[in-house]
Amino acid sequence: MADKSDKSNRFKARLPRGLEDHTPGEIAATRAMIDRIRAVYELYGFEPVETPAIEYTDALGKFLPDQDRPNEGVFSFLDDDEQWLSLRYDLTAPLARYVAENFDTLPKPYRSYRVGYVFRNEKPGPGRFRQFMQFDADTVGSSSPAADAEMCMMAADAVEALGIPRGSYVVKVNNRKVLDGVLECIGLSGEANAGKRLTVLRAIDKYDRLGREGVAALLGAGRKDESGDFTRGAGLDTKQIQSVLGYIESPYLAHGGDIESALDSWGKAIGLSSTGKEGIAELKQIAALVRAANYGTDRISFDSSVVRGLEYYTGAVFEVDLTFSTDSQDGSPRFGSVGGGGRYDGLVARFRGEPVPATGFSVGVSRLLAALEHLGKIETEAARGPVVVTVFDKDRMADYQNMVAALRNAGIRAELYLGSGKFAPQMKYADRRKAPCVVIQGSDEKAKGEVTIKDLIVGAELAKLEKGREEHLQKQTQAQRAVPEARLVEAVREVLARHGIAPH
Amino acid sequence: MADKSDKSNRFKARLPRGLEDHTPGEIAATRAMIDRIRAVYELYGFEPVETPAIEYTDALGKFLPDQDRPNEGVFSFLDDDEQWLSLRYDLTAPLARYVAENFDTLPKPYRSYRVGYVFRNEKPGPGRFRQFMQFDADTVGSSSPAADAEMCMMAADAVEALGIPRGSYVVKVNNRKVLDGVLECIGLSGEANAGKRLTVLRAIDKYDRLGREGVAALLGAGRKDESGDFTRGAGLDTKQIQSVLGYIESPYLAHGGDIESALDSWGKAIGLSSTGKEGIAELKQIAALVRAANYGTDRISFDSSVVRGLEYYTGAVFEVDLTFSTDSQDGSPRFGSVGGGGRYDGLVARFRGEPVPATGFSVGVSRLLAALEHLGKIETEAARGPVVVTVFDKDRMADYQNMVAALRNAGIRAELYLGSGKFAPQMKYADRRKAPCVVIQGSDEKAKGEVTIKDLIVGAELAKLEKGREEHLQKQTQAQRAVPEARLVEAVREVLARHGIAPH
Repeated sequence: MADKSDKSNRFKARLPRGLEDHTPGEIAATRAMIDRIRAVYELYGFEPVETPAIEYTDALGKFLPDQDRPNEGVFSFLDDDEQWLSLRYDLTAPLARYVAENFDTLPKPYRSYRVGYVFRNEKPGPGRFRQFMQFDADTVGSSSPAADAEMCMMAADAVEALGIPRGSYVVKVNNRKVLDGVLECIGLSGEANAGKRLTVLRAIDKYDRLGREGVAALLGAGRKDESGDFTRGAGLDTKQIQSVLGYIESPYLAHGGDIESALDSWGKAIGLSSTGKEGIAELKQIAALVRAANYGTDRISFDSSVVRGLEYYTGAVFEVDLTFSTDSQDGSPRFGSVGGGGRYDGLVARFRGEPVPATGFSVGVSRLLAALEHLGKIETEAARGPVVVTVFDKDRMADYQNMVAALRNAGIRAELYLGSGKFAPQMKYADRRKAPCVVIQGSDEKAKGEVTIKDLIVGAELAKLEKGREEHLQKQTQAQRAVPEARLVEAVREVLARHGIAPH
Repeated sequence: MADKSDKSNRFKARLPRGLEDHTPGEIAATRAMIDRIRAVYELYGFEPVETPAIEYTDALGKFLPDQDRPNEGVFSFLDDDEQWLSLRYDLTAPLARYVAENFDTLPKPYRSYRVGYVFRNEKPGPGRFRQFMQFDADTVGSSSPAADAEMCMMAADAVEALGIPRGSYVVKVNNRKVLDGVLECIGLSGEANAGKRLTVLRAIDKYDRLGREGVAALLGAGRKDESGDFTRGAGLDTKQIQSVLGYIESPYLAHGGDIESALDSWGKAIGLSSTGKEGIAELKQIAALVRAANYGTDRISFDSSVVRGLEYYTGAVFEVDLTFSTDSQDGSPRFGSVGGGGRYDGLVARFRGEPVPATGFSVGVSRLLAALEHLGKIETEAARGPVVVTVFDKDRMADYQNMVAALRNAGIRAELYLGSGKFAPQMKYADRRKAPCVVIQGSDEKAKGEVTIKDLIVGAELAKLEKGREEHLQKQTQAQRAVPEARLVEAVREVLARHGIAPH
């Protein structure tokens, strides 16, 4: 059949895997969320900057977690001049390029924020996309732990500005130097042990999820998960494993909020490592600053198991964890991390050839949005649509169009039905558009100089009521009424006011 | 020298050509501009939708102007499953994919808008980038000229909402079917003449810039430009050229606003072509609708030379031209087109295998921004920065930090100096940050329980005044004053009020 052959010639309308479209409700909610975070960042003196989605591949570097093969994880293409270009995989590497390129004209320290899409050429999965939005803030040019402390406090303030109550989140802080000290102390320093160190760090990172036994297995011979898949371990001996576990299991909170005592207990695992000692000293300074600013342990805490995946971190690392559960039967943390960051003193130095300290914080926008939606702090369902003016007589399009214009001029969202359907499809259309009401003018109304306003919200309520009762009669009056043409705007305003819909 | 070898190992911080970073001022101005346009589109009932930057190459199609080679103009890469992916080159082709994919659940006609970056792998030049922002609105599922008329009226309203006065812009309308009719009438129909038709359309498109003589040359043997470069012409004969020129040179305005007479004069060039007649009829309907809605020829006009470059247009085409000049000595249009669009009835049909009419309008965001900046309607220079609290005694970081917190809690943008510099670099920093004032507390002030507020704006004025005069003395009092610690916020508020800086 001709029809069949037509179909086979058609292009299939589909998105590549790991990519998604966004609905009106999601877009409006994301915008509202970003506006609230932006207000906090601007109050802290951070200013916006924006870099393009494409950079030279060598400028981005290779710092992605879990990517052992070169170029893995990044979308790349060859430019006309035979140089490799890549889509950015985060907003930090491009910022480092930007700062290095504009070093002489920027104020230093340089505080900035940016929001934008990043791209990962990875295997997509549930909640794991190949394009997603990040919202970053960074301070470049300050080695002071006060810059890290400020990041943590700003992150806490931003979370609260979104309506997440104190007690439902915590900013967890650690330091890569402490982790390096722990590794040094169990004999894993040097280039030869780089791979093993990475395996140990990844195991520590999983403590929240897998607990003591799982991490011990990953530090030792390896671990078989529920599905039977085996993950090869770091091959540490019992004494090394005990040392790492002892470090992980001395969290700050176990010391009743006494940071000195908590950090001293971490100190046991770093032995004589000077790097480790430096890390502990930095954490103590951060702790002193956030306490002086009255950020309690309920808001900013310290956690020895925080690692953060990206390879470029060199000092303090932090993440924001949401501590409420989505499952009422289970009190355990569920949402987990919605953002994180840390100190990356080497990234700008790659370009400058001189040390340029930097620290930053990145929010995973869609994860945070999901959390806010779960908490009922934001609405991702689209709001009410526009008023729809229906078309009864195609020769009178200009008249209908002028009704729409009158409504719009009064600040009321309104549209003209532009399809070819008769009455029933027009009502179905208004329904899909979530119109609060429709405006109708057939030849009868026209002859009388009137328009009919049909309140669709009351109409829907009416359908559920018993006929003849007083409430039914009252609603019937509201559901549909004819008014003189000149009173169109006024009558529509009454409908909107009835349902609490603000004019634009 | 070791230093030299270090330098040669460094990565160079640079952007690939045709890509750009955006400053705080540009970002804020773009956001303000988009907000104003969005308000108009929402008032018209359009709702947002967002698609990803990456699509299947075959879903995007090849509709770019001036791209004769396949794949030219588009950034593409091979996915793991050997399918080609591309970065979107406009926002229309992805919308067509989106509508086709969600056809059954979308209201029809479907009005939507979207803003986002698009990518062109083209030779960059001045004002010509490989990544730029577009802001589109589309109505899919209506074949009615009322949908095209609505696009034109909405575009005119959006331009005025941005503060561009009536008389400084015009929405110009034409119809591809009329152009097809003209080509048919001079014997250029049929597949064999496709290339020639394209050359003729491109020549017509250049009438604004090259005038009669230039276009006549491009329609005939070809044209040598000022630099001596030769562009091969369409090879039409004198009679054909006369016919095309006659059509171009019968613009609407020459008929004193009488659309019937103007379009009848265009009709001469289409002879008996039924396609051409259809186009004329559609234009007459659009004209009647916009006139009925009181959009005069100063806002929406008709222009036989409007072509629009993209190949997918099938009916009405329109563009928004800014008619003011940037050069005061020259009254000729200078800014030209800041947006355009048209009817593309074939794009969704590629996927659906059934006709799905559509019409849309796209704004070139940075071009429009440049125009607004030129008109003084928007400020792309960054506004005043935050209040800077300086650091005199590094052991008292917590105290300084608490001053900053007190200012922020009062809604005042404020930041702590986080660098390692002494007084002079801190003042230089505050200057670069455009700080309205700095807060200072050295050991003397601390001993007295005071803070010093230095008004940098008054300070700059002071430096220009003659010493000893009354004004100088008065400003001196304002330029620097000590207040009790408890009055810090109040005193900073006074400085901000003096300079009309609103709190956050």
